[in-house]
Amino acid sequence: MSSFEDADTEETLTCLQMTLYHPDHLQTGRFQAIRFCHREKLPSHKVVNFGRHSSTCHYIFQDKQVSRIQFSLQLFRDFNSSVLSFEIKNMSQKTSLIVDNHELGYLNKVKLPPKCILRFGDYQCLVEKQDGESLTFFETQFALSPTCLLQENLWPLRMPVPENGPQSTLYSTLPTEMDENEL
Amino acid sequence: MSSFEDADTEETLTCLQMTLYHPDHLQTGRFQAIRFCHREKLPSHKVVNFGRHSSTCHYIFQDKQVSRIQFSLQLFRDFNSSVLSFEIKNMSQKTSLIVDNHELGYLNKVKLPPKCILRFGDYQCLVEKQDGESLTFFETQFALSPTCLLQENLWPLRMPVPENGPQSTLYSTLPTEMDENEL
Repeated sequence: MSSFEDADTEETLTCLQMTLYHPDHLQTGRFQAIRFCHREKLPSHKVVNFGRHSSTCHYIFQDKQVSRIQFSLQLFRDFNSSVLSFEIKNMSQKTSLIVDNHELGYLNKVKLPPKCILRFGDYQCLVEKQDGESLTFFETQFALSPTCLLQENLWPLRMPVPENGPQSTLYSTLPTEMDENEL
Repeated sequence: MSSFEDADTEETLTCLQMTLYHPDHLQTGRFQAIRFCHREKLPSHKVVNFGRHSSTCHYIFQDKQVSRIQFSLQLFRDFNSSVLSFEIKNMSQKTSLIVDNHELGYLNKVKLPPKCILRFGDYQCLVEKQDGESLTFFETQFALSPTCLLQENLWPLRMPVPENGPQSTLYSTLPTEMDENEL
């Protein structure tokens, strides 16, 4: 049995592969809490938070520019479908989340396409979904990209035009240490 | 300042009023963990689980017929809207969740209308939403109905026709003690 299957049912698992990029990933330990090249099996009912807050988030970015909860991923099923889909919700009050060309404000959400690029601040993440049979579990797998995902010309995004220079629209002027997402 | 406002910002809070009914509510303690006639303030990013499992669920039904997580409620914002909306997702693999006339299977989800009736097993719940200004917090409030919500003729539901008698379609034949939603 491969790691792509549920050990009990031998059903294949839906897998979300996430390739992360940040221009300063070599200089700091922002990704040191992420286990790369490892498949993690999670229950389908789990809401997976990504962010800075270690007790609330399942995947942690060690970076004060990142919100306590930056975004959340969760599974759902369309009616009359046996395919698991992912929904992403922006949980940050200070930072927009860009899904391909769609900008999500606080608590906005979208269904993820099978392949897309997420952006928040200087972070980029290529997300690729592989469908599986199990409705009970799914898997995640992380990779690290040494090069910018947008400059590789693999993803012809129409970049939004910032008003005040590159990236300036992705972080607002709110303080980075505000108590958003405080439990 | 009333309890309907955020103490810091004085913004009014979106409130979800939930009126619960179960035919055996007097005989057992199924609702003893629910605090009735009390407004609870919760952060908008919180996913609120309802079910039997005390460590996973925020609101607990003490009833072995109820799944570990029966359903979840969470807030979101439509694009270009300042109004908070609620989404409900069925988290039970054994029991359908009926939202007015829409039957939700496992991991199916819908946006809640401003007023609706939820049903699962013998449980009924009238849900009424009051909009507020705050995007950071919302409130819940529970009431207990001594009478069936459907028979009061206040809610002209077109009841689905069960094949094997009343309520038989709402619980499947799966065992009640299966380990669904096991973390």
